[in-house]
Amino acid sequence: MRETLQGVIPPVITPFAGEELDLEAFRANVARWDQTGLSGYLVLGSNGENVFLDDGEKLDLVAACRDTAAAGKIIMAGTGCESTRATVRLTARAAAAGADCALVITPGYYKGQMTGERLEAHYRAVADAAPIPILLYNVPKFTGLNLAPAVVGNLATHPNIVGIKDSSGDIGQLIQIRRRTPEEFAVFVGAAGAFYPGLCVGAAGAILAVANAVPELCVAVQARFRTGDLEGALQLQRALMDLTPLVTSVHGIGGLKAAMAYRGYAAGDVRSPLAMPGPAARQEIGAEMERLEALRSRL
Amino acid sequence: MRETLQGVIPPVITPFAGEELDLEAFRANVARWDQTGLSGYLVLGSNGENVFLDDGEKLDLVAACRDTAAAGKIIMAGTGCESTRATVRLTARAAAAGADCALVITPGYYKGQMTGERLEAHYRAVADAAPIPILLYNVPKFTGLNLAPAVVGNLATHPNIVGIKDSSGDIGQLIQIRRRTPEEFAVFVGAAGAFYPGLCVGAAGAILAVANAVPELCVAVQARFRTGDLEGALQLQRALMDLTPLVTSVHGIGGLKAAMAYRGYAAGDVRSPLAMPGPAARQEIGAEMERLEALRSRL
Amino acid sequence: MRETLQGVIPPVITPFAGEELDLEAFRANVARWDQTGLSGYLVLGSNGENVFLDDGEKLDLVAACRDTAAAGKIIMAGTGCESTRATVRLTARAAAAGADCALVITPGYYKGQMTGERLEAHYRAVADAAPIPILLYNVPKFTGLNLAPAVVGNLATHPNIVGIKDSSGDIGQLIQIRRRTPEEFAVFVGAAGAFYPGLCVGAAGAILAVANAVPELCVAVQARFRTGDLEGALQLQRALMDLTPLVTSVHGIGGLKAAMAYRGYAAGDVRSPLAMPGPAARQEIGAEMERLEALRSRL
Amino acid sequence: MRETLQGVIPPVITPFAGEELDLEAFRANVARWDQTGLSGYLVLGSNGENVFLDDGEKLDLVAACRDTAAAGKIIMAGTGCESTRATVRLTARAAAAGADCALVITPGYYKGQMTGERLEAHYRAVADAAPIPILLYNVPKFTGLNLAPAVVGNLATHPNIVGIKDSSGDIGQLIQIRRRTPEEFAVFVGAAGAFYPGLCVGAAGAILAVANAVPELCVAVQARFRTGDLEGALQLQRALMDLTPLVTSVHGIGGLKAAMAYRGYAAGDVRSPLAMPGPAARQEIGAEMERLEALRSRL
Repeated sequence: MRETLQGVIPPVITPFAGEELDLEAFRANVARWDQTGLSGYLVLGSNGENVFLDDGEKLDLVAACRDTAAAGKIIMAGTGCESTRATVRLTARAAAAGADCALVITPGYYKGQMTGERLEAHYRAVADAAPIPILLYNVPKFTGLNLAPAVVGNLATHPNIVGIKDSSGDIGQLIQIRRRTPEEFAVFVGAAGAFYPGLCVGAAGAILAVANAVPELCVAVQARFRTGDLEGALQLQRALMDLTPLVTSVHGIGGLKAAMAYRGYAAGDVRSPLAMPGPAARQEIGAEMERLEALRSRL
Repeated sequence: MRETLQGVIPPVITPFAGEELDLEAFRANVARWDQTGLSGYLVLGSNGENVFLDDGEKLDLVAACRDTAAAGKIIMAGTGCESTRATVRLTARAAAAGADCALVITPGYYKGQMTGERLEAHYRAVADAAPIPILLYNVPKFTGLNLAPAVVGNLATHPNIVGIKDSSGDIGQLIQIRRRTPEEFAVFVGAAGAFYPGLCVGAAGAILAVANAVPELCVAVQARFRTGDLEGALQLQRALMDLTPLVTSVHGIGGLKAAMAYRGYAAGDVRSPLAMPGPAARQEIGAEMERLEALRSRL
Repeated sequence: MRETLQGVIPPVITPFAGEELDLEAFRANVARWDQTGLSGYLVLGSNGENVFLDDGEKLDLVAACRDTAAAGKIIMAGTGCESTRATVRLTARAAAAGADCALVITPGYYKGQMTGERLEAHYRAVADAAPIPILLYNVPKFTGLNLAPAVVGNLATHPNIVGIKDSSGDIGQLIQIRRRTPEEFAVFVGAAGAFYPGLCVGAAGAILAVANAVPELCVAVQARFRTGDLEGALQLQRALMDLTPLVTSVHGIGGLKAAMAYRGYAAGDVRSPLAMPGPAARQEIGAEMERLEALRSRL
Repeated sequence: MRETLQGVIPPVITPFAGEELDLEAFRANVARWDQTGLSGYLVLGSNGENVFLDDGEKLDLVAACRDTAAAGKIIMAGTGCESTRATVRLTARAAAAGADCALVITPGYYKGQMTGERLEAHYRAVADAAPIPILLYNVPKFTGLNLAPAVVGNLATHPNIVGIKDSSGDIGQLIQIRRRTPEEFAVFVGAAGAFYPGLCVGAAGAILAVANAVPELCVAVQARFRTGDLEGALQLQRALMDLTPLVTSVHGIGGLKAAMAYRGYAAGDVRSPLAMPGPAARQEIGAEMERLEALRSRL
């Protein structure tokens, strides 16, 4: 597992037809992503509208991804729940449904009580019980909680905790995490703005919303980095910077789905209370996608 | 419904024996609370470890509260989920299980996308579908999101939206809400520090964690206020101020359960990753409960 | 001093003609405010554009206020600087210029280092040296720092620290402060939304931006409260709630000066980088002032 | 000016003997720093206790730096005040005292009013009037305000605005700034954790508190980066990560002065209300300095 945990992984979107889960659309997307050099798929991430899915839907999505994805693609499932025991249960079921590893978000509802000690106990209990390896998931903008590098360092000694997705966007924290963890511990960048810089400080790859819509460009950033074409990698990183906010902070998952639709992906709708962007936003996103498509075609 | 929506309502804790739901303990607490002058019970609130419960447990708790509580007690159920449709479904099932009304938290996971417009659409859809009246629930410290008074004012015109629990602790906001809503719209204070001040500006009552442990004192604050004994009401409010942080921000639900145990309630354990407080914290809580018990005995 | 520290005090605005201090306009305002029942004046507060004034201007303003104000009006000067020694010096000079007491803001630039212990040492050093009594000033929205009630309680034992202006808007904190300080310690509310509620929990008065523009209404809130006309006081409090954000959070000091100009005060301009509001904002403010003027005329 | 604006620049500390400015100590430090490969000095930065200095002290420090520093060293002065006109005046006087360029912090006291438009107007007015080039200074942790990349892009077109110090630590923002500004616009990293990553994305250099205490290591990071020894540069960057919080967020300027004293610099005391660290903190800092000294001696 550890040696393959690298590269670009999209937190795959969950297509809905109206409010209903559209598994066929989901499969179609996976089949198409398979052609792009992505290392694998994060199913049930924040961008997968995880919090809107019931357990049956969650397991259907993992199984559909497993069935469809090419051999060798990492199937990572977002299985973190607020309680330890629900997390343990969902992780076991996701493993049975075909997940290779699980990404476990910090439980943040009772953030005032979530000391480093409590978080560490939670992760150890989950990792002890899990039939598959576990990655930590730190995303302060959603949880209101930061997983301190010292805690990550402690947890990295657990044999079944193999990596982290850090979406803080704090590059200094990424360096701190890298320092306190063994080389084989897979550090994934979870904020698009920190992708190339993250590679420069030792990240194994990135899990990025934009990789749903422009996987080839994201893959190319890391490919160029690996071959030593730093200037070329940075150029692509810069090119991604205008799309990134449009499909995350500004227009959210609706914006991401609109961007994917521009490329012909079967993105579908979002579940309420989220909403798809209006015409002006779609135009803004379309213009940016057009610019990037020109860039992609010249890769 | 509207005329009875007033008074002190505890967001009732959910007792666990280890990690298992203990319905007998829950029923015992309700039976005992029934003797204290509380107006009703909020089942499945934040203090009820809502986010740790599965749907079956949630409905069992509502039904157990309905069965046990004395006639005339309001049974309010926390049915807010992140998605509109899950909220609609759980509200219907809670109604079937015996809830009189539902308290619906602002869906906050995708907080950056939750504009006033989106929140309004969410609440209207839920209220349209609900077989029981709905109350809004604004708790920025948990959700990272504030429900603006203007949005509350709009929603208060919906015939099936009958009130709000505002836990912001912002007394100015409470006044703004009161101004923009009709008199029969029930405004509950959700922050202990704003209880008596909230009554002074027109709140119908309060939904307070501390009311689990010291219901008599909370009820007495409002009783004194109603009879015009403002000085006496304020004195009790002041007396509650040291316990409040111990059972909320400082020691959390574990602290609240420890305080209840001091009074002989069947509070049980918390689910992991929460933890019960250690000996020092218990002693601190016990000392404060002792002080308040002396006060209560002289009521 | 202590017995007179009560009532409504405006943090008086500093009129500029273009960028130049206009002392004549300032005196004219004080003379007019003198007719309104205000208890005194806070010169050099945040609303007085304190951070834009040099030391000469500051002392001229204090002296002008002293010279103009009617006998018995409290002259309070905002003398808090980032360093202890600058605060000591300015307090001494303000006293020499005629200030009755000084309002000392928490030094917040190095907020990460400003523990309760450091703040307490700062205030003790200032109070020890000051020839006039000191009031604490807690305004988290400007300083990013909160002065904990426990620290206020400690400082209230100092013979030369006679009160506090708390602008947190946190009514629970106001109750905590009130509990931990002797009755003669003057607690002023600094957030308009907490004015009436603050009186209900024992505040001595309020220091409010809106009192620059509608002093009569603010004074009437407290007058009604004192005579036991709680309903009437609350009604006026509610009436103030729409003006308040327009002259603080929304349009800032420029908005406040526009509101004052509507009433014929010599408000003048703001210093750059602040700006006066545009026509739409002025119209919004004017409409609100018109509504309040109708109310005032019926007092 | 533009071509020389690069490399490592310490925001130099201001030594005090007790509470008194110690210019001799200051000169001694500059003389010693002159031997270390630093590109220049930022006088009157946040780490220079700028907010504790009066105008006379400020100009004495600029002049002393000018007199002492070797030819070719950049003398940058922190001249930003809350008002536009005070900033213009201090910039002119700093230029007269020998500053080569001025670093102008975003005026943040009235942060709610500081729109991009107001900030842009402020900076244009300052830059128009300044006899020396201006750099923008963005430090959200102190000001509570972020200078958006779009605003930076607009300001970079002004002929007298030649660079920025961005202390947000947000590497994505650094990339955005770099994209929106011409190549000769000097982007300085102001957060130690983003130093090496910043160089990787096109920063001209860094202005770092730690460079006061370990200038040689900081200079070596950039030297290695320039010669293409990326692995070596990253190694040094990692080595700096434990000292950084000790001399900034944890122990503040007192911690930084203690670290400098370890190396024999004449760091002196801090002004009150800041305080020097106690014995335990000094030991922690000393241990870290010892580790880094071993590293430095092997450079």
